[in-house]
Amino acid sequence: MSKNYKLVIGYDGTGYSGWEHKAGRDTIQGKLQDVLGRLNHAEVSVIGAGRTDAGVHAKGMVANVHLDVGLSPEQIRDYVNRYLPENITVYEVREAAQRFHARYNATGKTYSYALWDGSVKPVFERRYVWKIDGRLDLEAMRQAADYLLGSHDFCGFCKNPQKKKSTVRTIDRIVIERENEKVTIEVHGDGFLHHMVRIITGTLVEIGLGRMAPGQVKNILETGDRALAGPTAPAQGLCLMEIDYQ
Amino acid sequence: MSKNYKLVIGYDGTGYSGWEHKAGRDTIQGKLQDVLGRLNHAEVSVIGAGRTDAGVHAKGMVANVHLDVGLSPEQIRDYVNRYLPENITVYEVREAAQRFHARYNATGKTYSYALWDGSVKPVFERRYVWKIDGRLDLEAMRQAADYLLGSHDFCGFCKNPQKKKSTVRTIDRIVIERENEKVTIEVHGDGFLHHMVRIITGTLVEIGLGRMAPGQVKNILETGDRALAGPTAPAQGLCLMEIDYQ
Repeated sequence: MSKNYKLVIGYDGTGYSGWEHKAGRDTIQGKLQDVLGRLNHAEVSVIGAGRTDAGVHAKGMVANVHLDVGLSPEQIRDYVNRYLPENITVYEVREAAQRFHARYNATGKTYSYALWDGSVKPVFERRYVWKIDGRLDLEAMRQAADYLLGSHDFCGFCKNPQKKKSTVRTIDRIVIERENEKVTIEVHGDGFLHHMVRIITGTLVEIGLGRMAPGQVKNILETGDRALAGPTAPAQGLCLMEIDYQ
Repeated sequence: MSKNYKLVIGYDGTGYSGWEHKAGRDTIQGKLQDVLGRLNHAEVSVIGAGRTDAGVHAKGMVANVHLDVGLSPEQIRDYVNRYLPENITVYEVREAAQRFHARYNATGKTYSYALWDGSVKPVFERRYVWKIDGRLDLEAMRQAADYLLGSHDFCGFCKNPQKKKSTVRTIDRIVIERENEKVTIEVHGDGFLHHMVRIITGTLVEIGLGRMAPGQVKNILETGDRALAGPTAPAQGLCLMEIDYQ
């Protein structure tokens, strides 16, 4: 009889066409389905908590998969890690309730965006940060971020919002911190629209560089006008950190 | 008139044939000489504090170079960083005394070796650690490391020792620490023989896994027999951290 397993997954998204399986492309879901399908001696469907775009990383993606194999969760984890490429890893495999669904049951997500505003190039972090020319003013960024807290229509922070779907989301935490030349923006909310964290980041960077006022965030929320927001920050600075389940 | 500049350099050694210039190979010294030669409108010789092997990284290599350019040290740094590949960076450029020589004047070096002994693969650190199967016993490793402190003939920890050159070196600090699944061995000494840090690391790993007794280190020092030591740890876990000048 098949069992349902919960997987916690990390990946370096560099060079991948994102999470979601696409024929002929390198995707995280595709790689996992290949390896788990081989283990299962039958095709499997790996259900992720969400999709990540091409080039985005993860340290805490969650997925579930139904398998009919006579192995312990640790044995599954070790098998998968042996055959996955070196830029994808499964941190944990756990047996879950049959009805557990990684996407439908997710109640919250944490993303982290890493910026680098030093005067020299980051050599070891170069694939995981967005290098900014100029010095970021964290106080201005934090002031702007405060406007984003709570439930809002984030239409102005979304790529191609779909008319029939709600663009209301709730953000309950944004922490902006500096560690030497690395500035991280950690955002926690109940869910995120397409490119939402990256457009928020692009806007906060404009504000951090003094090219936009912190109050601009309020205008974007009120008008829902994407054109008033900053650019979409590049994928490589973004990392999916954690998925909440209740 | 030409001035002498001291450079502090970082690089991700992955894919490089080491520090030292070799025609037709990608080397750190070669890349620096190309860019600085272009700036100088004449060939330059970049003198490094030492050589690092193929695949070894650096966060604090020091070099000096004589240039005849009308730029401030910051301008030189920014020019060089603009044209160097993204895996090499110059953290600092400073004018030095004409007689300053990065190799002859170096009085000490710090290397750090990173090990990973977790049960899952390190995705983001995969290029900068040596993954160990099994759990390392740090107490045994520290006990063994104590034998290395002081002045010794490190012949048994050297690749191809040359008969006419002294293999006596002084190590005054070895710090072995764990941070979750990452174990680092930091070694400070007055200088190191070829592969010395990597053979020390390979030996400490054997001891940390219980395959050799800590006292083996004493035998290797006394006999100078390379065959009694552990394997040479792979280059990718090694990083040159700092060079001392008095």
